[in-house]
Amino acid sequence: MQIAIIGLGKMGANMARRLCRGKIKVVGYNRSDDITQQLAKEEGLSPATSLDDAIAQLTGPRLIWLMLPAGEITETYIKQLKDKLTDGDVVIDGGNANYHDSMRRGELLKGSGIGFIDAGTSGGVWGLDNGYCLMVGGEKQYVQHLEPILKVLAPNETDGWAHVGPVGAGHFSKMIHNGIEYGMMQAYAEGFALLKNKTEFDYDLAQLTELWRHGSVVRSWLLDLSADFLKDDQELTDIAPFVADSGEGRWTVEESIRQGVATPVLALALYMRFASQNDNAYSNKVLSMMRNAFGGHLIKDK
Amino acid sequence: MQIAIIGLGKMGANMARRLCRGKIKVVGYNRSDDITQQLAKEEGLSPATSLDDAIAQLTGPRLIWLMLPAGEITETYIKQLKDKLTDGDVVIDGGNANYHDSMRRGELLKGSGIGFIDAGTSGGVWGLDNGYCLMVGGEKQYVQHLEPILKVLAPNETDGWAHVGPVGAGHFSKMIHNGIEYGMMQAYAEGFALLKNKTEFDYDLAQLTELWRHGSVVRSWLLDLSADFLKDDQELTDIAPFVADSGEGRWTVEESIRQGVATPVLALALYMRFASQNDNAYSNKVLSMMRNAFGGHLIKDK
Repeated sequence: MQIAIIGLGKMGANMARRLCRGKIKVVGYNRSDDITQQLAKEEGLSPATSLDDAIAQLTGPRLIWLMLPAGEITETYIKQLKDKLTDGDVVIDGGNANYHDSMRRGELLKGSGIGFIDAGTSGGVWGLDNGYCLMVGGEKQYVQHLEPILKVLAPNETDGWAHVGPVGAGHFSKMIHNGIEYGMMQAYAEGFALLKNKTEFDYDLAQLTELWRHGSVVRSWLLDLSADFLKDDQELTDIAPFVADSGEGRWTVEESIRQGVATPVLALALYMRFASQNDNAYSNKVLSMMRNAFGGHLIKDK
Repeated sequence: MQIAIIGLGKMGANMARRLCRGKIKVVGYNRSDDITQQLAKEEGLSPATSLDDAIAQLTGPRLIWLMLPAGEITETYIKQLKDKLTDGDVVIDGGNANYHDSMRRGELLKGSGIGFIDAGTSGGVWGLDNGYCLMVGGEKQYVQHLEPILKVLAPNETDGWAHVGPVGAGHFSKMIHNGIEYGMMQAYAEGFALLKNKTEFDYDLAQLTELWRHGSVVRSWLLDLSADFLKDDQELTDIAPFVADSGEGRWTVEESIRQGVATPVLALALYMRFASQNDNAYSNKVLSMMRNAFGGHLIKDK
């Protein structure tokens, strides 16, 4: 069994490692060559110097797994692969593409007889050891061809990977997965803030989160991670109160609007991240001016 | 080691079972006697016919664990115990009392030299087998006296129970725990709704939730339970879209207002439950009338 992985960033590199250790022949290509050489040395990955080289090192039908930033970069590679691959080859996008893009790309490649699979991939940096959770969309014949790979990437052969629907269904379900993740994280964060702020009880948040891991209704992997970092530092003095967001949270809320389905928690979790990103919020300045205008309330100087 | 449990409802009865099986002498009292007799027969619990009888069956210092509905009923028993117990005895409230009540009750009993412990207890019906998660507030001397009991109730001797602070800190942390629970549940529910509503992908929600249990970032015990019931039925045709709420969610949001800390996800999770409870919402009628008033939009007949 063999596969090429294009893009050896944090996720791609660890997935390549897991596959190499699972006795899969992995051809790896990355724009900057350092990580490729490192993986070749440490894991026995076959280094490729270009996309063409990666393709040339595989025998057909060829599996090309893209682990690239969603958007323009993934788009560029898909277009190149459309011309470089042939009938029966399969392109897998394991990145966080918008499912609309994936459906369009699936159609694009289908015109050349090339298979397309959108494989929503969860697990973060822990996937190397724990295995990844893989939500796979695509046509049955291509997914079957990919199965041996999926079984190595997943926590075990039967769990943590599934063919969930047609092209698009993989990235759609990964998008919702991440939307839920935003909501869960925000729920914990708000709760921890109320505990931290209750100074009269002087809680040890490391103790409490560790406690909740055992037998409580809110136990989860996110709680495990939280207990872990709170053990080292629960004051978080050096952490900026700024939360980045990537596409998936936004797309989830857009989808809720398309569907006309109320998802206030997923939406607010996203908007609170936006608020955290904008400590100079114009809306808050406006509110302050309005309060002053009707009630003569003091305006706080900047 | 011995203890009396007052209130043998779903939680109290299972806790009594777990203690009996853990070789603790349990005296049990319940308003209706059936469950008491059943536990006596099945688990070797010592049945009591009244609160006085329960107290009489213990030797000092006596531990009385209340597992009663929060509010008036718990209050009544605390007041009775104030008169019936003596110096060095300890009352434990394992119910979901408001932490302000617990602090007041702690002071009340302290006046008579009686110890008070507020033990926030999580685990639901699964606690019997898995063990309970116990957030314990109170003075050190009383908590130490209770330790052997806590070690049997918890999943194991070291995990799942902790002395988290003074009287009130147990119920406060349990309140926040439940507030977080509301937010997490709502996050999952909104995500599942977006998946279910995406009919073009025809998702098998039982497959997806089972999949997410392995290696994904959103894995949790609540997800385990969801995968379990979705396996049996994912249409939920016979389930009313009505979500009850108990005090803890409300108190969490009240606390956020007292603290002036933004908790939009915890608040919205609560408000969505309120909305589910009111399918005849006056606010929606008003909105419909306003739309009609300014735009002549159609009003949907009842």
